[in-house]
Amino acid sequence: MPQFPTIGVIRDAAERIRPYVHRTPVFTSRAIDAICGAEVFFKAENMQKVGAFKARGAVNAVFSLDEGLIGCGVATHSSGNHAAALAYAAGCRGTRAYVVMPDNAPPVKKAAVAGYGAQITYCESTQRAREAALAAVVEKTGAVFIHPYNDYRVITGQATAALELLEQVSGLDLVIAPVGGGGLLSGTALAVKALKPDARVYGAEPAGADDAFRSLQAGKIIPVENPDTIADGLRTSMGDLTFPVIKEHVAKIITVSDEGIIKAMRLIWERMKIIVEPSAAVPLAALLNAKDEVKGLRAGLILSGGNVELDNLPWCNN
Amino acid sequence: MPQFPTIGVIRDAAERIRPYVHRTPVFTSRAIDAICGAEVFFKAENMQKVGAFKARGAVNAVFSLDEGLIGCGVATHSSGNHAAALAYAAGCRGTRAYVVMPDNAPPVKKAAVAGYGAQITYCESTQRAREAALAAVVEKTGAVFIHPYNDYRVITGQATAALELLEQVSGLDLVIAPVGGGGLLSGTALAVKALKPDARVYGAEPAGADDAFRSLQAGKIIPVENPDTIADGLRTSMGDLTFPVIKEHVAKIITVSDEGIIKAMRLIWERMKIIVEPSAAVPLAALLNAKDEVKGLRAGLILSGGNVELDNLPWCNN
Repeated sequence: MPQFPTIGVIRDAAERIRPYVHRTPVFTSRAIDAICGAEVFFKAENMQKVGAFKARGAVNAVFSLDEGLIGCGVATHSSGNHAAALAYAAGCRGTRAYVVMPDNAPPVKKAAVAGYGAQITYCESTQRAREAALAAVVEKTGAVFIHPYNDYRVITGQATAALELLEQVSGLDLVIAPVGGGGLLSGTALAVKALKPDARVYGAEPAGADDAFRSLQAGKIIPVENPDTIADGLRTSMGDLTFPVIKEHVAKIITVSDEGIIKAMRLIWERMKIIVEPSAAVPLAALLNAKDEVKGLRAGLILSGGNVELDNLPWCNN
Repeated sequence: MPQFPTIGVIRDAAERIRPYVHRTPVFTSRAIDAICGAEVFFKAENMQKVGAFKARGAVNAVFSLDEGLIGCGVATHSSGNHAAALAYAAGCRGTRAYVVMPDNAPPVKKAAVAGYGAQITYCESTQRAREAALAAVVEKTGAVFIHPYNDYRVITGQATAALELLEQVSGLDLVIAPVGGGGLLSGTALAVKALKPDARVYGAEPAGADDAFRSLQAGKIIPVENPDTIADGLRTSMGDLTFPVIKEHVAKIITVSDEGIIKAMRLIWERMKIIVEPSAAVPLAALLNAKDEVKGLRAGLILSGGNVELDNLPWCNN
C-alpha cells in the first residue's frame, strides 16, 4: 500500500495556512434536511478566501516551498479557482504567480485571477495547448509549477476543510465532496479516515465528466474525454497521486445529471441564501440521488466554491 | 416625550421568540471594508426564518396574544415578508393566518406565504383595496389583525436583531437599517440607544420612496405617494408609532438611487457569497454614499432579507 500523507501532515498544513485562510462556517437548513430525510451539514468553502477551497491547497503549497525556490515565483495552468488561489497565495508570500488559462474561461474567473495580481498567459482550451504554454512560461521565468491537484502539498491543504468540518460537527456518518481532479476528494478522504474511520466518504461527480466513477470501476485511471457539464470546476481527470487515495478510501462515486446539479444549486440559493457555483452543488445533487440509503444519517457536504457568473445563471434566459 | 418600549421589553421579546427564530450570524468582508474605508459588520437577517427579520416581529406579536384571543387566528395585509412571517408565526403557535396580498406581489413571495400555510386573499395593490379586503377577512373570521410595523409588539420583535448585533460586535460607532414603514428602524434605534447611546443610528431609504427622509425634515409624517423603487420591501409609509421613535433617536436618513441599490446588492452577492434582496442592500448603498463621514468607523448594517426572484434578477436581461 502506498505511503499516503498522514493526519500529522494535514495538521501541519492547517497550522501553516491558518493566517491566510478562513475557518469557514457550517450551515444547516431544516427545509433541506426535510427534503433529504437526513441531517445535512454544509461546509461553506464558497466563503473561503478567493471564494473556493482551492485557497487551502495553494497556500499550503506556496508556503511549503523553501526560500531559495520561491524567488522566481510560482506557475500553473487552471481554468479558474486554482489560478486565483495560487495568485492569492503568491501575494501572501510576496512572490509572483504566472497563470496559463484557456481563453474560453469564464470572465468572472479571468477577472479574479487578474485581480489577485497574477500574470496571465491565454491559450487554447486543449490539455496539450495548456501544457505547452505552461512549459514555455516556466522555461522563461524559472517559476515553480504548482499542479492544481496532483501534489501532496495541495492535497493536504484541501484536506484541512474536512479536518475543520469534523471539529465543527460531531458524529458524522458520511462526508461527500465533489470530484474533478480529485484533490479535494482525496484530501477529504485522508482526513475523515484518520479521524473518524467508520464514517463513509463519497465522491460526487457530474455524469458528463464521470472519469472518477469509471476509473474506480476499472481499477485504473481512465481520463475524461470531451467533458460536458455545467460544473466547470469538475471537468478534469484524476491524477496518479489522487486516484490511489480515492481507490483506497472512497466508498463510492455518485454521478449526477446537470439538471440535478442546477436543481440542487437553486435549492441551496433559495433555502440557505448563500451563493454556490455549480460544482459546489454536486454533493447535494448526489445526496438527493441517494435518499434511500442516507435516511436519518448525519452527512457533511463540502460546498467547494461560490464563483458564479451572476450575469449568466443557468435559470436566466439570456 | 412619549413612552417608548424599554430595553426590558425588548429583552422579553428576545426570550419569547428564541425558540422560533435564528440567532443569525454576522459577516464581514475585507474587500467591502476596503471599498467603504470602514469596518462593516453585516447582520445576516437574510438567513432568518422565512428569509427576513420580519419573523422576529411576527413571532413576538403572535406569542404575545392571550390564549383567548388567538383561537380565530391572525390576519394582515402585506406584499411579502411580513405575510410569510405571520404565517410562520401562526404555525408555530398552532393557529391560522389570513393574509391579504396585492395580486402583483412577486411570485416567490406569494409562494412562500402559501407554503407556510396561510389562507391568501388577493386584492388590487392600492392601500384602500388592501384595507377593505383585510376588514372583510377580519369581519368574517374574527382573526386578530397584526400590523406589519405600526405595533409595539412588532417593533420590539424587530429590535431583537440589533440587540443580538450589539452582543455579537463590540464598539460599533454606527448602525444602519433600511426604512420602509419604520418597524425595523425604530426597533433598531430603541435597542441601540438603550445599550450604546453614543452610537449613531441611520436610516437608509430608496430615493423613490423617501417618505421617512421628507417626514423627518417636515417634523411630521408625510406619506409616500407612487413609490418607485426596486426595493419592494420599502415602499410603505411610516406609522404613528414608528415615526416618533425615528424622530427622537435616528440621526439621519440617507437616500439612495435604485442604481446604487443594485450595485450594493451585487457587491454583497459577489464578495460575501450571500443572497440578499434589494431592500437589504439599501444600508450598504447608503454607507457607500456617505464614505467621507464614516471613514474608519465600525458600522453595523442590518441585511433585512434574502427573498429574491432568482428568475428575475436586476442584472439579468430577460
